[in-house]
Amino acid sequence: MLRSHHCGALNENHSNQEVTLAGWVQKVRNKGFIVWTDLRDRYGITQLIFDEERTPKTVFKKSLDLGREDVIQIKGKVIERESKNSNMATGGIEILVKELTVLNAAKTPPFTIENQTDGGDELRMQYRYLDLRRAPIRDNLVFRHKVTMAVRNFLSQADFIDVETPYLIKSTPEGARDFVVPSRMNSGQFYALPQSPQTFKQLLMVAGFDKYFQIVKCFRDEDLRADRQPEFTQIDCEMTFVEQEDVLKQFEAMIKHLLIEIKDVKLDDFPRMTYSEAIQRYGNDKPDIRFGMTFGELNALAQNKGFNVFDSQELVVGIAVPGGISMTRKEIDAWIEWVKRPQIGSKGLVWVKCNEDGSYKSSVDKFFNAEDLAQWAKATGAQAGDLIFVMAGAKHSTRTQLSALRMEIGEQMGLRKADEFAALWVTDFPLLEWDEQTQRYHAMHHPFTSPKKEDLELLDSDPSKVMANAYDLVLNGNEIGGGSIRIHDTTLQEKMFGLLGFSEKEAQEQFGFLMDAFQYGAPPHGGIALGLDRLVAILGGSETIRDFIAFPKNNSGRDVMIDAPASLETAQLEELYLKSLPKDPS
Amino acid sequence: MLRSHHCGALNENHSNQEVTLAGWVQKVRNKGFIVWTDLRDRYGITQLIFDEERTPKTVFKKSLDLGREDVIQIKGKVIERESKNSNMATGGIEILVKELTVLNAAKTPPFTIENQTDGGDELRMQYRYLDLRRAPIRDNLVFRHKVTMAVRNFLSQADFIDVETPYLIKSTPEGARDFVVPSRMNSGQFYALPQSPQTFKQLLMVAGFDKYFQIVKCFRDEDLRADRQPEFTQIDCEMTFVEQEDVLKQFEAMIKHLLIEIKDVKLDDFPRMTYSEAIQRYGNDKPDIRFGMTFGELNALAQNKGFNVFDSQELVVGIAVPGGISMTRKEIDAWIEWVKRPQIGSKGLVWVKCNEDGSYKSSVDKFFNAEDLAQWAKATGAQAGDLIFVMAGAKHSTRTQLSALRMEIGEQMGLRKADEFAALWVTDFPLLEWDEQTQRYHAMHHPFTSPKKEDLELLDSDPSKVMANAYDLVLNGNEIGGGSIRIHDTTLQEKMFGLLGFSEKEAQEQFGFLMDAFQYGAPPHGGIALGLDRLVAILGGSETIRDFIAFPKNNSGRDVMIDAPASLETAQLEELYLKSLPKDPS
Repeated sequence: MLRSHHCGALNENHSNQEVTLAGWVQKVRNKGFIVWTDLRDRYGITQLIFDEERTPKTVFKKSLDLGREDVIQIKGKVIERESKNSNMATGGIEILVKELTVLNAAKTPPFTIENQTDGGDELRMQYRYLDLRRAPIRDNLVFRHKVTMAVRNFLSQADFIDVETPYLIKSTPEGARDFVVPSRMNSGQFYALPQSPQTFKQLLMVAGFDKYFQIVKCFRDEDLRADRQPEFTQIDCEMTFVEQEDVLKQFEAMIKHLLIEIKDVKLDDFPRMTYSEAIQRYGNDKPDIRFGMTFGELNALAQNKGFNVFDSQELVVGIAVPGGISMTRKEIDAWIEWVKRPQIGSKGLVWVKCNEDGSYKSSVDKFFNAEDLAQWAKATGAQAGDLIFVMAGAKHSTRTQLSALRMEIGEQMGLRKADEFAALWVTDFPLLEWDEQTQRYHAMHHPFTSPKKEDLELLDSDPSKVMANAYDLVLNGNEIGGGSIRIHDTTLQEKMFGLLGFSEKEAQEQFGFLMDAFQYGAPPHGGIALGLDRLVAILGGSETIRDFIAFPKNNSGRDVMIDAPASLETAQLEELYLKSLPKDPS
Repeated sequence: MLRSHHCGALNENHSNQEVTLAGWVQKVRNKGFIVWTDLRDRYGITQLIFDEERTPKTVFKKSLDLGREDVIQIKGKVIERESKNSNMATGGIEILVKELTVLNAAKTPPFTIENQTDGGDELRMQYRYLDLRRAPIRDNLVFRHKVTMAVRNFLSQADFIDVETPYLIKSTPEGARDFVVPSRMNSGQFYALPQSPQTFKQLLMVAGFDKYFQIVKCFRDEDLRADRQPEFTQIDCEMTFVEQEDVLKQFEAMIKHLLIEIKDVKLDDFPRMTYSEAIQRYGNDKPDIRFGMTFGELNALAQNKGFNVFDSQELVVGIAVPGGISMTRKEIDAWIEWVKRPQIGSKGLVWVKCNEDGSYKSSVDKFFNAEDLAQWAKATGAQAGDLIFVMAGAKHSTRTQLSALRMEIGEQMGLRKADEFAALWVTDFPLLEWDEQTQRYHAMHHPFTSPKKEDLELLDSDPSKVMANAYDLVLNGNEIGGGSIRIHDTTLQEKMFGLLGFSEKEAQEQFGFLMDAFQYGAPPHGGIALGLDRLVAILGGSETIRDFIAFPKNNSGRDVMIDAPASLETAQLEELYLKSLPKDPS
């Protein structure tokens, strides 16, 4: 071992001990006759002192050449500092160095290895191994380790078994695009990387494994939006002989356990909200309930009063911004411009100030009187001092736009606190959604989700009305998990594939093994999958998943550090019986 | 929840309780007026009783239709059995059934779901979800879960951090063949699936993570030998500021911990053996030291005595089979035929019986006298009653052949006991091996393994003599892990790539990021990777890794259950700018 202690271990109790430390040079302060050096490793920082009088001459001389990030080993004596630093675990001592070995000299890094670095995003991605040296990023990954260990131990103690499912599986056109892997031994054929272990975990239930979990990489070849990764990690779980309520209870307990164990935060029972309620009250199905500003629908109150902008629209809906009357006209205009940006795409905002004296001032005073506006205030829950923003338009887009506005105002008002946690279950999702483009139904969750028993008859008469035994777990305005009770009956599964536009042959080719399995004694089962990257980020007080992944890819799916993907040698392609085509074969 | 208890939970203490159980019908015994049914789940088996008198008529009637593997739910009362079965946890009770719901009827499975099944290998692979229902296979996977949890908790407590490294990386021609993944977003370019996270774990050490582990899937596109899988799981570990001894100690402690925790077996300190000693004494570098029969080299004793078969050969070497004089001539001939099979490829065996009276009888009595043979006995450690088998030939092939013979005799004599564990470290491997075919050196371990300091000068003068800081962990005659202290110096790494036939450009293209990283303060580091599939199999008392993998592939790399790999739709290939070529483009 090249060290007797790590750099976070020593304190006054070790005074006068001879120790050997190894680590990175964090900082050098040269006072001429004394050189102080901060030595860093994963565990902490220890101050070294090279002293013209007490340190051997050759060693002292060598210390003058030390530079940032050099890797060194030192031997020396623990001594108490003259002026202690109580903010550091090792702040009471320093090491009077007697021997110094430079294990590996370092070039000056392209950016500073400090909590606040001077390096830009791209540079830090290219030298990710240096960026990972910075305490905030390193701490994120240690934190991630703690979360996964806590998850594993919790689930293991609850009788879940960790079972590894295969990575080389079969491509299925349903859902997102697969990454595929050409098979050399089976020429012309391809494996696919799993988008999730969905069918395998269901087979494990058919096999009687009862409770399964896995923390597993999944893959989606999608055009990457900001903060999406082509490979991501899922906490994948499945249970047998359960109903929706059992799954919700089990994983509510897990999230509560994590928050206690990792963050020392005790959560109350999670509220439940139906999908349609979430859409109506928050404009989306993953509401951030850490703050209010819920939607008030104003159609009955605001239409047919002569204001054409409202009358012609499907939905008129508003939110009350707490204390918003203090906004200047300029600030209000800025919000109007904000919602009109193409990313949001709203036509504008109507505003109403609810003055402290009970009077109202609005941008539509011409069309609405105080009584009208009082009713709006009631519908949006506005109190004296609040400002109401109102939008009108098509139902879906207007809700989405107002939701974006609500979230941004919440953000700017500091209502989305990173150290405050609010979870809820969203339930009662529709089973199917109609896709105008392809003129067919898509599974809202996935094709294996079961319809609610009481809606089974609607499958034939009005499929769009069928509700699913599906549920999402939402934390701080992010969907961190979703699941369902699955279909476990061949006939129902066949019917579902039919609704999704599969021919019998296609269904058989792609999922024949699963429908076969259902005929040999498939138990009722259900489960959930949680996005680990996002869960860890949110628990860590951030929404940037990239900061919680050791080696993330950029928005083009590239690893700029190792420069992947890359060209193959022709021989490698030939062995796979493949030929690359030019991108534009014109 | 569809049950109040699982099928392994109930005993006499629950007598007279009303319970709800769910599970699979294991067995039905119809006595006319009474039907006994065994209900099975992961946790056990509970006996159900349907009684003409005490069970409601309609329920009793339904029970007559129950078949193997039907999934049912029952409600009933726990009653004590008249004749108890003390071999079962639930053997004291049975459930007098009052309500019966068939949750899912089952077709008769294609083979019996029993510990000893009537299903052949292929059928069981096709219906793997049914094979997984059999207790021995299910227990293997529960056992695997226990091993991984124990590994994770041990390493976590020893300050190792679980860090996920990427699966979509870059192809490198060194080593085995990569599986590649075409990139749609970067047309004409490919990712590769990792053969191991080697370079990433080294970068984590450069990043100061100090101690890393990961239980991770790795991929090799090799022509599959029996019991090799294209995807396999590795316990991957790396440590900073360590020397070989530190790594050995840490992972010896881990294996000891596993054996205590999982098998209640206490191991002594692991013996150490150099590579050359292992080759000389056991004929291979992963000796099974649970039994003797070590090699005795006989060149000095057996050559130049007029026996041409020996005189002309590079090596004469023998082993002593304990108690072997009881072998009949026919049995000895069978062994001679065994070693002459093409899989072994030996020319034959000379044998010597060491009689109890001190005399010798051999197949070469014409050439050697009793005194000669007494010396052979001494060299091979043969005692009175033993039989010596002697082989002669080229060094390498003869050792390999004799090693195969030793293992087979050990197997047949019952010396390779599944519940006995003998681990050792093999050290001092050569750094390089010369490959006649490609006329260049290959890395015996991998290109990142460091040479021993004292051999550094030999790198220029006689590379084949250089020893590596590499080590293998061997358990019961299987290599279950291997590792090394790595190179952490750019110049040495460049030299190593040069020896391995990389041009500077190739080295830079493929591993430039690593050599760059070494310039920014790379600490000394080393590690190990253990093959989880094999480790679990051996701990579980087997050498068949397939029985410890939930969904293994067959020898052609196919998953016959889901029928993968498979053809892609043309559109999918076009999106990837790829074209499949015919296998024989003539």
